[in-house]
Amino acid sequence: MAIVLADHQYGKAECRLVRVVRDEPRHELRDLTVTTTLRGAFDAAYLDGDQSGVLPTDSQKNTAYAFARASGVGSPEQFGLALARHFVADVAPVSGARVEIEEHAWDRVDAGGTEHDHTWVRRGPEVRTAAVTVDADGEHVVSGLKDLVVLKSTGSEFAGFLRDAYTTLPETHDRVMATSLVARWRYAGAGRTVPDDVPWDAVHASVRAVLLREFATLHSLALQQTLWHMGRAVLDEHPALAEIRLVAPNKHHLLVDLEPFGLDNPGEVFVATDRPYGLIQATVTRDDAPDAGSAWDTGAGLA
Amino acid sequence: MAIVLADHQYGKAECRLVRVVRDEPRHELRDLTVTTTLRGAFDAAYLDGDQSGVLPTDSQKNTAYAFARASGVGSPEQFGLALARHFVADVAPVSGARVEIEEHAWDRVDAGGTEHDHTWVRRGPEVRTAAVTVDADGEHVVSGLKDLVVLKSTGSEFAGFLRDAYTTLPETHDRVMATSLVARWRYAGAGRTVPDDVPWDAVHASVRAVLLREFATLHSLALQQTLWHMGRAVLDEHPALAEIRLVAPNKHHLLVDLEPFGLDNPGEVFVATDRPYGLIQATVTRDDAPDAGSAWDTGAGLA
Amino acid sequence: MAIVLADHQYGKAECRLVRVVRDEPRHELRDLTVTTTLRGAFDAAYLDGDQSGVLPTDSQKNTAYAFARASGVGSPEQFGLALARHFVADVAPVSGARVEIEEHAWDRVDAGGTEHDHTWVRRGPEVRTAAVTVDADGEHVVSGLKDLVVLKSTGSEFAGFLRDAYTTLPETHDRVMATSLVARWRYAGAGRTVPDDVPWDAVHASVRAVLLREFATLHSLALQQTLWHMGRAVLDEHPALAEIRLVAPNKHHLLVDLEPFGLDNPGEVFVATDRPYGLIQATVTRDDAPDAGSAWDTGAGLA
Amino acid sequence: MAIVLADHQYGKAECRLVRVVRDEPRHELRDLTVTTTLRGAFDAAYLDGDQSGVLPTDSQKNTAYAFARASGVGSPEQFGLALARHFVADVAPVSGARVEIEEHAWDRVDAGGTEHDHTWVRRGPEVRTAAVTVDADGEHVVSGLKDLVVLKSTGSEFAGFLRDAYTTLPETHDRVMATSLVARWRYAGAGRTVPDDVPWDAVHASVRAVLLREFATLHSLALQQTLWHMGRAVLDEHPALAEIRLVAPNKHHLLVDLEPFGLDNPGEVFVATDRPYGLIQATVTRDDAPDAGSAWDTGAGLA
Repeated sequence: MAIVLADHQYGKAECRLVRVVRDEPRHELRDLTVTTTLRGAFDAAYLDGDQSGVLPTDSQKNTAYAFARASGVGSPEQFGLALARHFVADVAPVSGARVEIEEHAWDRVDAGGTEHDHTWVRRGPEVRTAAVTVDADGEHVVSGLKDLVVLKSTGSEFAGFLRDAYTTLPETHDRVMATSLVARWRYAGAGRTVPDDVPWDAVHASVRAVLLREFATLHSLALQQTLWHMGRAVLDEHPALAEIRLVAPNKHHLLVDLEPFGLDNPGEVFVATDRPYGLIQATVTRDDAPDAGSAWDTGAGLA
Repeated sequence: MAIVLADHQYGKAECRLVRVVRDEPRHELRDLTVTTTLRGAFDAAYLDGDQSGVLPTDSQKNTAYAFARASGVGSPEQFGLALARHFVADVAPVSGARVEIEEHAWDRVDAGGTEHDHTWVRRGPEVRTAAVTVDADGEHVVSGLKDLVVLKSTGSEFAGFLRDAYTTLPETHDRVMATSLVARWRYAGAGRTVPDDVPWDAVHASVRAVLLREFATLHSLALQQTLWHMGRAVLDEHPALAEIRLVAPNKHHLLVDLEPFGLDNPGEVFVATDRPYGLIQATVTRDDAPDAGSAWDTGAGLA
Repeated sequence: MAIVLADHQYGKAECRLVRVVRDEPRHELRDLTVTTTLRGAFDAAYLDGDQSGVLPTDSQKNTAYAFARASGVGSPEQFGLALARHFVADVAPVSGARVEIEEHAWDRVDAGGTEHDHTWVRRGPEVRTAAVTVDADGEHVVSGLKDLVVLKSTGSEFAGFLRDAYTTLPETHDRVMATSLVARWRYAGAGRTVPDDVPWDAVHASVRAVLLREFATLHSLALQQTLWHMGRAVLDEHPALAEIRLVAPNKHHLLVDLEPFGLDNPGEVFVATDRPYGLIQATVTRDDAPDAGSAWDTGAGLA
Repeated sequence: MAIVLADHQYGKAECRLVRVVRDEPRHELRDLTVTTTLRGAFDAAYLDGDQSGVLPTDSQKNTAYAFARASGVGSPEQFGLALARHFVADVAPVSGARVEIEEHAWDRVDAGGTEHDHTWVRRGPEVRTAAVTVDADGEHVVSGLKDLVVLKSTGSEFAGFLRDAYTTLPETHDRVMATSLVARWRYAGAGRTVPDDVPWDAVHASVRAVLLREFATLHSLALQQTLWHMGRAVLDEHPALAEIRLVAPNKHHLLVDLEPFGLDNPGEVFVATDRPYGLIQATVTRDDAPDAGSAWDTGAGLA
């Protein structure tokens, strides 16, 4: 028996990077939080403290800023691919690189009726995400979003569920349903290399629109059912996507009992609660989807 | 010499309250976080543990939910006035009440091209605020907003400043200026009582638009100057407001030095930093403004 | 009528500063978050964009780091006094300076039975605070702590309270009482200048011990009563303190109703809730306390 | 080609549960945040909105509270095992259950020199964790901790690293090294069932002590090397553990350049930075460790 080093990886987390495009009077803006992670022949750093093969995380940060200047940030996915390809191709000990990006959206300010050229107001809380992995296995892109907070004030039921000795929940045929959605979808390339002409921004906008449309229009018998319909519709309308994963906290809105005060409450006044919350998760996929390889692998981490 | 109880107050903080108006198929929604605070003859609770004059904070919470059902939530200001007036009028030991409300905005979901009747997506991070105080001194309303995050990618300078032995900052005539604005403005009633017909929602929308317009259109020599222009314009265009207070962290965006990598950086790539940040604060008022009384008084608190 | 600039101030917020004393093999460590705020003749910066009297916030930051090297960090109070005195004495337009400091505590690591010389583990969540103000009015020091989370599993009641139409809360003679205490106490100097030999660390430790002792030993009829006893005991045992302010959220722990499952619950199983919470605030003072002047004045801010 | 439902799971997240043991005047306290997750034959809920096999998350919450009363909370691991075994054994559609628990530590208050019987002060920010999985594969326990923030003010180097075109970092032979450690270790049972007599509290205390000792005593050539030594020592001294995973952000403390102010800075004054940070991750294992099965599987989630 021996004690051995197994999986390991290292990188620079949460580089805050704002890229302004100012070739025209009407500026453009991309606001990213970039995390780079390298995998490869770094055992000696752990076992012997030998750093000769270790590219400092500070250099990884510098690389992100330099690439943003030299090549721009076309989209989070393109920027992630450029960085990940560089680390694998140009830094000898690196066999795999993963770049995770969050994009924070800004709207142009309306200044007295017209959109301003160089002034923005932050949109939120929603965040766009991209996770790009490049390794011996090929290239993988997972796009997504998180903190998309949505609510239906009717059109949602929860009834007919299993009851055990610990069940006291009443059934309801009209409730508030709300969640803060996390969704991630995997691009299914035909080959090992992701083509340069994928319209990442347009795909993202379209997937987001489908998710919102399904959430709104389905009369929901459970959050589970809503997730399935959201996921299925996305894959149905986007043949280039292989798989989508959805994580949805059920942000409970409890109907307040106003009877002690001589008032009814026909679905009008609710307490929005923080904790606990339901947590529903599902993956929807094509049965002929190409293998995910390392697309979803966050590495040695612990979630 | 004696040790004595001085100021004190108590209440219920952060009641999360969602009010749905569902008289029509097209629902309306108001999402509030309500804090109530009572002041008055509560000394015995502190000095002797005598609760006979203490209305439980639980009852204050119940009151908020019951009022939301019985009278609705016209606006945060109206709802705050209704609650504060009730506590002062109907609960004997209460001589003053302060109700602080945060409103969280939701947009209707676009479901395939049309706004959905009962499905929303959370807008943010901006929060609308209202602080209503009712006491022997009269009625006071302070409206506001916070977490309004704005950024200019040009049109901002910082130069010609005082230099001392600890000054190393270079001057700049073109920088990114960004802040997360907190603004609060005080309604100036003609008398002791706030009239029922103040169009609080419209005033709020208008003040917000003025703040954004001024931030966008002023070529700024300093964040201080921008605050003054924002505040002055708001008072200039809203005669019913007596005073506005502005707190603006200077969210520094540092130009990245890319010279070591053979690249220039003409205002294109920035590091958005978390801490430290500048913090600029200013009050703009009318020189004939009615006395603020307890409008700004958060009580025994410590900020 | 004219629109005018009223109160204003500016500064650098949340400079993270770690000071190591390494003259001996056994190091010492102080870990601070420092905020400096300047008041004075800065109107031209707002009104005209004229920065000629404005010391950059970046210079204020540099000053904090330079002072930490040159003079060390004896205690948060001493460090704050040194900085505030410097700004008022040495920077011409400054008429008043306020320095707010948070100190984050570290314990030495126990390495196999002995305290290690240069390795620490962070203690928390409690934070020590100091707010120093120097202006024409004199010198003021307010020390304090926040996020001191304490809980009693018995020895607390809440009964005999006022009942109105919205009261449904049952009385209890045995409950869990918990809070996350904020306390700030004002040093009462004999004159305008704070002496150099106040043992700030020892006073802080002693006040903290009194607060904990009173919370533990008083059989509490309400959180209000507990606050009064805590505040009174601190002033009683510390003649050099003029006043203490206490803010205490009542972090509700609700007894779970287990009857549906055939179980009683004699004070054994609780839900710890996040929101809403009670919020109790009180100031305890000496009736002959010297005037507070600007000690508590956070400035143009909005809390 | 068909679009299909793949992995899915659901549960109740973040039930805040405080258990008081009050059989004696000297109470005991365990403060937990409990998340339960069920896996199994729940497809119909997604595909058809059929809830007949779905145990409500509300019932899962009730179960946790009822079990805490009926059987107590021996340790997070024991409590998690009891809950997970129940869901798999007693709820028909459940084929696998995962219970994740965070424990928040409290110290007894020192009330005038003696430990108080029923008053506590919260210790933190460190959190103890446990993740228990029971399924067809057997029983798995992963214990751990997170937010263990540690710092060395000397005894750490970073030099001799790989330099590429983007490397500007200077080498250092004496720096501050700090991290906020996450560690999780997997119990290696001899069989499919975890025995009842594992001394979970004692093992946790011992592992924590080993981690701190190694962090303190190793002269570190890189955070990677420190992680390896921590992990190896834990497995070396705990034969019952199969594997340990470590995630360590490198919380950079930058030496402040004070030369512009005529001051040197021999390792005394540092800026503690928030972002970006290095992120070092490693798994240390025995080469004959039993298979991990679903021990680390957080399910359909997205990390």
